[in-house]
Amino acid sequence: MYHHVKKLMFTVRIGEPEPRFGNMLLEQFGGANGELAAAMQYTIQGLNCDDPGIKDLLMDIGTEELSHLEIIGSLARMHLKPTKSSREAAEADPLVAIAGGGGVNLFNSQGNPWTADYLKITGEIDVDLRSNIAAEARAKIVYERLINFTDDAGTREALQFLMTREITHLKSFMKGLESLGIDPLVIGEIPPTPGLVDQYFNTSTGTGDDGEKDVRGPWNKGNGFRFVDSPALKGLADEAKADKG
Amino acid sequence: MYHHVKKLMFTVRIGEPEPRFGNMLLEQFGGANGELAAAMQYTIQGLNCDDPGIKDLLMDIGTEELSHLEIIGSLARMHLKPTKSSREAAEADPLVAIAGGGGVNLFNSQGNPWTADYLKITGEIDVDLRSNIAAEARAKIVYERLINFTDDAGTREALQFLMTREITHLKSFMKGLESLGIDPLVIGEIPPTPGLVDQYFNTSTGTGDDGEKDVRGPWNKGNGFRFVDSPALKGLADEAKADKG
Amino acid sequence: MYHHVKKLMFTVRIGEPEPRFGNMLLEQFGGANGELAAAMQYTIQGLNCDDPGIKDLLMDIGTEELSHLEIIGSLARMHLKPTKSSREAAEADPLVAIAGGGGVNLFNSQGNPWTADYLKITGEIDVDLRSNIAAEARAKIVYERLINFTDDAGTREALQFLMTREITHLKSFMKGLESLGIDPLVIGEIPPTPGLVDQYFNTSTGTGDDGEKDVRGPWNKGNGFRFVDSPALKGLADEAKADKG
Amino acid sequence: MYHHVKKLMFTVRIGEPEPRFGNMLLEQFGGANGELAAAMQYTIQGLNCDDPGIKDLLMDIGTEELSHLEIIGSLARMHLKPTKSSREAAEADPLVAIAGGGGVNLFNSQGNPWTADYLKITGEIDVDLRSNIAAEARAKIVYERLINFTDDAGTREALQFLMTREITHLKSFMKGLESLGIDPLVIGEIPPTPGLVDQYFNTSTGTGDDGEKDVRGPWNKGNGFRFVDSPALKGLADEAKADKG
Amino acid sequence: MYHHVKKLMFTVRIGEPEPRFGNMLLEQFGGANGELAAAMQYTIQGLNCDDPGIKDLLMDIGTEELSHLEIIGSLARMHLKPTKSSREAAEADPLVAIAGGGGVNLFNSQGNPWTADYLKITGEIDVDLRSNIAAEARAKIVYERLINFTDDAGTREALQFLMTREITHLKSFMKGLESLGIDPLVIGEIPPTPGLVDQYFNTSTGTGDDGEKDVRGPWNKGNGFRFVDSPALKGLADEAKADKG
Amino acid sequence: MYHHVKKLMFTVRIGEPEPRFGNMLLEQFGGANGELAAAMQYTIQGLNCDDPGIKDLLMDIGTEELSHLEIIGSLARMHLKPTKSSREAAEADPLVAIAGGGGVNLFNSQGNPWTADYLKITGEIDVDLRSNIAAEARAKIVYERLINFTDDAGTREALQFLMTREITHLKSFMKGLESLGIDPLVIGEIPPTPGLVDQYFNTSTGTGDDGEKDVRGPWNKGNGFRFVDSPALKGLADEAKADKG
Repeated sequence: MYHHVKKLMFTVRIGEPEPRFGNMLLEQFGGANGELAAAMQYTIQGLNCDDPGIKDLLMDIGTEELSHLEIIGSLARMHLKPTKSSREAAEADPLVAIAGGGGVNLFNSQGNPWTADYLKITGEIDVDLRSNIAAEARAKIVYERLINFTDDAGTREALQFLMTREITHLKSFMKGLESLGIDPLVIGEIPPTPGLVDQYFNTSTGTGDDGEKDVRGPWNKGNGFRFVDSPALKGLADEAKADKG
Repeated sequence: MYHHVKKLMFTVRIGEPEPRFGNMLLEQFGGANGELAAAMQYTIQGLNCDDPGIKDLLMDIGTEELSHLEIIGSLARMHLKPTKSSREAAEADPLVAIAGGGGVNLFNSQGNPWTADYLKITGEIDVDLRSNIAAEARAKIVYERLINFTDDAGTREALQFLMTREITHLKSFMKGLESLGIDPLVIGEIPPTPGLVDQYFNTSTGTGDDGEKDVRGPWNKGNGFRFVDSPALKGLADEAKADKG
Repeated sequence: MYHHVKKLMFTVRIGEPEPRFGNMLLEQFGGANGELAAAMQYTIQGLNCDDPGIKDLLMDIGTEELSHLEIIGSLARMHLKPTKSSREAAEADPLVAIAGGGGVNLFNSQGNPWTADYLKITGEIDVDLRSNIAAEARAKIVYERLINFTDDAGTREALQFLMTREITHLKSFMKGLESLGIDPLVIGEIPPTPGLVDQYFNTSTGTGDDGEKDVRGPWNKGNGFRFVDSPALKGLADEAKADKG
Repeated sequence: MYHHVKKLMFTVRIGEPEPRFGNMLLEQFGGANGELAAAMQYTIQGLNCDDPGIKDLLMDIGTEELSHLEIIGSLARMHLKPTKSSREAAEADPLVAIAGGGGVNLFNSQGNPWTADYLKITGEIDVDLRSNIAAEARAKIVYERLINFTDDAGTREALQFLMTREITHLKSFMKGLESLGIDPLVIGEIPPTPGLVDQYFNTSTGTGDDGEKDVRGPWNKGNGFRFVDSPALKGLADEAKADKG
Repeated sequence: MYHHVKKLMFTVRIGEPEPRFGNMLLEQFGGANGELAAAMQYTIQGLNCDDPGIKDLLMDIGTEELSHLEIIGSLARMHLKPTKSSREAAEADPLVAIAGGGGVNLFNSQGNPWTADYLKITGEIDVDLRSNIAAEARAKIVYERLINFTDDAGTREALQFLMTREITHLKSFMKGLESLGIDPLVIGEIPPTPGLVDQYFNTSTGTGDDGEKDVRGPWNKGNGFRFVDSPALKGLADEAKADKG
Repeated sequence: MYHHVKKLMFTVRIGEPEPRFGNMLLEQFGGANGELAAAMQYTIQGLNCDDPGIKDLLMDIGTEELSHLEIIGSLARMHLKPTKSSREAAEADPLVAIAGGGGVNLFNSQGNPWTADYLKITGEIDVDLRSNIAAEARAKIVYERLINFTDDAGTREALQFLMTREITHLKSFMKGLESLGIDPLVIGEIPPTPGLVDQYFNTSTGTGDDGEKDVRGPWNKGNGFRFVDSPALKGLADEAKADKG
């Protein structure tokens, strides 16, 4: 059950409205890494979750994201309001201007409607927590980019608040995942095929237009990896040999 | 530049085609966590990437996923072929049957067209690698569920091959992320607000219908967390007090 | 700011889970007339609204719909849970089974992802209230159809609760609209063109295959309407006459 | 069966083409509240309708909307034509310019493809008529906004024509709904639960950042409503009391 | 301007309604190759077209497709009507049953909403006509598949009517394209690069799992083609040679 | 099986990056007629194809298109890179700037995510080849428009390369279709209804606002066509006569 309190979690004040920036803010309202996506991803994972601790964690953060949705929506609304009456402002976001009368809706910066395709929900706790860790990292970097594109003090403060909370959530999800005590290379119950699982397939080879070469690093060297060079071409070569043989 | 070799990376043989299972297989062909999603996510991240090592890693795995797309597509095709001529089979996937003549297309198990909204691409290396780690975990669990829903030996072998490779990729992405040497709680360049970042907001409280209670765990206790109880309600309470005062 | 209380607004208990019915229930979870659509439509209208009374109304009902989302999601989850482990159950909703591990997600009964295209938000109070009246009427009839398709007592009780609330909301929105005191034929500020506005264009004529004829009723007769017969054909006839003339 | 007459229902003449305004006009061509949405919503409702009078009404207006689609498309086309040859004009709508060669397509002002998700069709006559009343109100306000954003006389005349017709349709749908003689609070056949249906849940409380307070009005006071304060919090309070008791 | 005549272009009578087949019929109502797609593609191409002859052709066929939309919709409606009252029938198409009350909507057989992404409109007459030729070919084959999946005589007759008309349209579009007198290898105005345009890149090589080999045919041999073998691998080989050199 | 070679099929060098043009280039990266659409359409048709020659053709061209995807993506990336750090550049494509950090993703010029709804795949060889011929014609004209909108020499060269290859593919698909020896008016196996198939329905009549008249041409005259005038109106006239009779 939900209760709404009329005060914003972070009070928003802006200077001069800037419609083009308001349009950009919609990324975090109705966009792929935005607050509705976060709220729904965690809340619905929570609804599906049978582990009482992780369920509580998911509901806590899912609910907080609803409060963030309200903040970012209010902020975008302030910047987009002039699109109702000014033709020039309207060009910053014709959809908000014409269809919305200057009011926000669940679109991103290019007017795409929010879609549940943004969500990553598998019903497997540890997998869901990994999706959430990645989601928080994405949201953090998007807020940072927005901060870098505005000079308005009030706007920056609100975005800084929201950005900070993503790091808090990132940490909680990481600790939640650790608390499960699952080996990070074990997912589900069916084990991978031994031997095959250690092979790194080097399927992109040669030298790039700017001289880029094949690179060996900890992701394909040591750590138990066996380097398999150009598996597709090996097949061709074997065939050629057989043809000649 | 790409080259295609006519042989599948894993030869697929099946027993009796099973259209309803073929329909399920489409989840990994044109679905949200499927092979095209993986191929495109990594390849386009690679195209945007300026770090030569991680770029190579992304192109290697992105290319391998294209070969997987071919395997899962061939497998689904075998199971769905009867939908062309059998009315009963057609009911397992009317879209494949009527529009595709029994041939596969980039749809999921309920006929939704593949969409780039499935992709997580931010242009920030470490963030992208986290998205990839989560993506591989999701793909692994989906393959496991598919394996659990079929008895056909040839199908299970092919799925086991594909599932195994996800673990290999998971490990490579984890090692790739570690190789960057970035603190997992640091994303981008703007630091979070001190003090605020440590507060855990307990926004979901009370006792559930099955007696679920608030839980304290490493995600909201210790680890530098400060527990803030019911922030929304605190505002209400303060207000009530002020009204009386 | 939002607070979540762990108890459902209406406690849900079901008998035997019925996956095919669970799939149908998703219409009211992630479907076009479902609870998320209602919650978002009203809440975002509220966020855009400058009238304090209507804003409060929108936030009250928008928040209640979030609690309903939780109820219908929990109910659908109970009916869909068997899709995780039973292959037969999985065929009732392969997307929930394979991608969701038996957990719900914001899809409708045919797996379409929820989209903000479902929402009707114009930033014009009276227009928005009319959209809401229609939305509540749609939600009511959908719940009625669901009730008619299940015999499970617990499920029916929960659906009856949710259905009842739609009527309450319908009435509140109707009273809210009346309270504005706006002539129902006046929208916005630019008046329609006199004369033209009274013309009813009879653009569909003749007798149907089952004998259907043109009908005159209060929607095109009396009430100030002027009946204009077959405007497109009149043009043709005039032309023909001119050619002969 | 349809017949097309080459003349537009309202002849369109414009002065200087204005691509950015042409882009805005697409809202009423391929947008959520545009003419295709209207034409399809009414026509398909008509196709499903068993009441001869309402069916005729739906087909009359649905057909007229097809003629409007032609008008708004022709108008948008005139304004967007320069996008074919002028790079500057092309920036007003790159999708129309590059993919369409300056020709229109069923997109909205931000290039989203028209989707049947815009339609509200339930197969319940009175519910459908309510959806149509709301749809006409939305279309009216959108035309008004477009009129306010252009000075071109010919364009304004065409938009005034189209806007006027929405009021005509609004009235016809209202009269059609009245003619059914259904109590506006009765939808379908299953009655709501007595007692519960009268309760207004005050789920949004407190004082907003700008001093907004809870409001009582005819939507939650009198009219048979019973005001239930903060149902979610009441649960919490009861629990707290029980814990102490 | 449009006029609607209440009689169907082809009177539809069916025997026993068959909901699962009705669901399949939706492919031609709201599906990718269906009648709305045809009607809109041709009509909007017509609206953009400056050639009076081709414009007339496009409007003639575009309008006929609207009449076909009405036929296929009526047919699907007859087969899907039982989904309103029978739970078993409802399982054939839960979206039509629950959301539509047994009435059709612009969805395909798996409930995807019709989208303008199905349309191919470029504003280049000859290119558009080629898209239409392909569209008619697709529609023809889809009708054939539907015919093969039903025994109902009335249904088959209606489908046969619709299928036949696609061949008529196919021919008209082919003759229309021929009438333009454009070399089929010339598109637009910028000529391709001589030399390069003659090269056929053999980018898929080797022997398949079932022994498939590279094939030479008129599409890569004779006809002025120059066969370029494995361009990607040639780069690799050159590089390898250079490394050794 | 696929192998990737790090060198681009055509080396891309640009002068000054131009973000607004980069945004337009996305049409050929993630747009409806772009390289991913081509790559997927042909490759998946190939996967479904049982004819060894046409299958090889489809795989050759499908694979080449993947190499083109890499070229156009690299080109767009160069032009869009400034959107990461420059606010002004960011306005050219806020989605790429804010969500992508200046990196490309599978969107079109107005930010719509790539969707499999762009693909035309029927599993009927000759029909698929016709869809491909049309697809190549569309891609050619889109490249031409892009060339006309930039002065940058390096960009034009890359686009000229890509545009040229579309003509090569167009020719190969045409020769492939011819090689099947199928009468272009025969699709599938069920013949159209004799008599009916020859009737051209003149459903759009009268004189347009600019004096456009009905046109007779090879698409409705000669060639075995029988001209049927205004079929819908004939019904009305017959009825009127009957009423009088």
